[in-house]
Amino acid sequence: LKTVIDLHTHVVPPHLAPDTDRGPRWPRIERAAGGNASVVIDGKVFRRIDSRCWDVERRLADMAQDGVTGQVLSPMPELLSHWLAPPSAEHLARITNEHIATMVAAAPDRFVGIGMVCAQDPERATRQLRDVRDLGFCGIEIGTHINGVPLGDPSLHPLYEAAESLELGIFIHPLHPAGLERIGAVGGLGAVAAFPLETALAAVSLLANGILDRFPRLKFLLSHGGGALPWIIPRLDFAWSLGGPFKGMLAERPSEVARWFWFDTILYDPKALRFLAQATDAGHIVVGSDYPFAIRQGRPGGFVEAALEDCDAILFDNAISYLDGGNRKGAFAVRRADDRAALRTHPVGGTHG
Amino acid sequence: LKTVIDLHTHVVPPHLAPDTDRGPRWPRIERAAGGNASVVIDGKVFRRIDSRCWDVERRLADMAQDGVTGQVLSPMPELLSHWLAPPSAEHLARITNEHIATMVAAAPDRFVGIGMVCAQDPERATRQLRDVRDLGFCGIEIGTHINGVPLGDPSLHPLYEAAESLELGIFIHPLHPAGLERIGAVGGLGAVAAFPLETALAAVSLLANGILDRFPRLKFLLSHGGGALPWIIPRLDFAWSLGGPFKGMLAERPSEVARWFWFDTILYDPKALRFLAQATDAGHIVVGSDYPFAIRQGRPGGFVEAALEDCDAILFDNAISYLDGGNRKGAFAVRRADDRAALRTHPVGGTHG
Repeated sequence: LKTVIDLHTHVVPPHLAPDTDRGPRWPRIERAAGGNASVVIDGKVFRRIDSRCWDVERRLADMAQDGVTGQVLSPMPELLSHWLAPPSAEHLARITNEHIATMVAAAPDRFVGIGMVCAQDPERATRQLRDVRDLGFCGIEIGTHINGVPLGDPSLHPLYEAAESLELGIFIHPLHPAGLERIGAVGGLGAVAAFPLETALAAVSLLANGILDRFPRLKFLLSHGGGALPWIIPRLDFAWSLGGPFKGMLAERPSEVARWFWFDTILYDPKALRFLAQATDAGHIVVGSDYPFAIRQGRPGGFVEAALEDCDAILFDNAISYLDGGNRKGAFAVRRADDRAALRTHPVGGTHG
Repeated sequence: LKTVIDLHTHVVPPHLAPDTDRGPRWPRIERAAGGNASVVIDGKVFRRIDSRCWDVERRLADMAQDGVTGQVLSPMPELLSHWLAPPSAEHLARITNEHIATMVAAAPDRFVGIGMVCAQDPERATRQLRDVRDLGFCGIEIGTHINGVPLGDPSLHPLYEAAESLELGIFIHPLHPAGLERIGAVGGLGAVAAFPLETALAAVSLLANGILDRFPRLKFLLSHGGGALPWIIPRLDFAWSLGGPFKGMLAERPSEVARWFWFDTILYDPKALRFLAQATDAGHIVVGSDYPFAIRQGRPGGFVEAALEDCDAILFDNAISYLDGGNRKGAFAVRRADDRAALRTHPVGGTHG
């Protein structure tokens, strides 16, 4: 059994009361029997969830089943609420972060947190980053755009600067993707088909606007294997090599700059993961699953092992590298300093296959 | 030397006079010295071009240099003008199609045409399809959306039905891509970064709206290796396998339905082409280059040979299969019936590398 750290999992607090003062898009949780619940936003059920979103015991049992040793917990993306008024978004971030901290505290050798901030108000976000850091989290999650503001926009520089100086990573998750009007009337395909395209657009925004050069120690983790970014890199390289405005934006070939990104393994296809490992720095690939949602890659460590020989770094070491710095109180950083070997020899049940 | 048919090349008529009656977005060609010209739309230079866009002799010389035996000629995508009033679009289509027919007539053993129609008015388009067929073309080119209407929209069924019954293929080219607002203020990246994402959205629109099932003999050729479609197919398959609304839309796994698409080879990266060949029906992959624009894959046959062993079908036979039916007067169909072997043994100069 290998030690596997899963960096892409989501949580939802079990209680979010209606609060009409917070505006119509304030999310609330409606609990139902059997550990089921609904996230209700703007009067509509956004998603039906269950206790895996908050129940530590159930989660640990699933991890044992899935061969996952440690999980990094981040908010369900819709909770990021980049569209709420800043005071409401800040309040929701505090509730969500504190819930994540509670889950981490319940099993500190198994969980590390990724928090959220009010990214739509960079000054407020910068303040909140210190709280995130004090909670011992390794970083924050943000959407692929901040309520329409692209991630390469200069207005976000203060947020990136603060995260870099606090050694917090940025986990980028697709959210309200562009281009659904090109698909037409087919409900539910946004998260399936448009998410990976959306992530590529956000990554290109960071690349082309020089964000990776400007904040060289900031660790951007891209969801779902970077979305379609790895696939379009050859075209970006080719266009860059022709000169013109794009060449002026990047001192190095796009494929070289893109090696600064971090990528999870949620690709569902061994040959796609092999392509990713060839296209980028294999030392920046970490396991992800999207647990506990339906789209999750089950047995995420086993998926990696089946696709790649010599994948121990992806299963474990790369995660430690990613978490390092921002993860002062987290289990994995402690382990790293003290007895990483102990964590390695303390895997949970389950087999890979 | 191998016989190579390049299905993705573009042309522009050398003369398009200003015509204020046609509306502000009517394109005009401003000729300059040395075979140079500008395409001017709405008072702005859309693209600087040169005589490779219309000059048969120059084109044949470049083909010799690039190791290309035959080219399929299609309009520069911006000329598709899905945003013009239908009478203007129909007029522009006639001018463009007749120019393509003239080029084909000048070297009928080297060129086949792909035309355009007024797709924004399906009834008019259906009429024009007969002209396209009478010109001996193998199909039409359309954008990834028709002025905002997604390609899976039922309003386009009559166009697809007519094309299928006339045995004309549909060449889908990215045009005015969605999602540029996610990148931010970085000119020129639309065609570079967003085009392959846009093509994936259009392909998903066709897939999810059942167009490939409804028109089983219609040959959709996707630009640039299908854009990001091959890359997201594993995610589509996974989501489909979970059931839910997406499963209800498709009787078969998305990867199976996607095998009905045709794909060109404009991927710039051998491992991407190998990925495509594994992800789909290698019998539906044809050579493309984007000649004569800057982004073109030079020596497109050589690129394929370097990436894939046993690629003769991609270099030639698949193109003949694609062209078959709609290409009554075209060189390659005649060759196919009469003396395909002769075309094979009649390659032009140049070596692959």
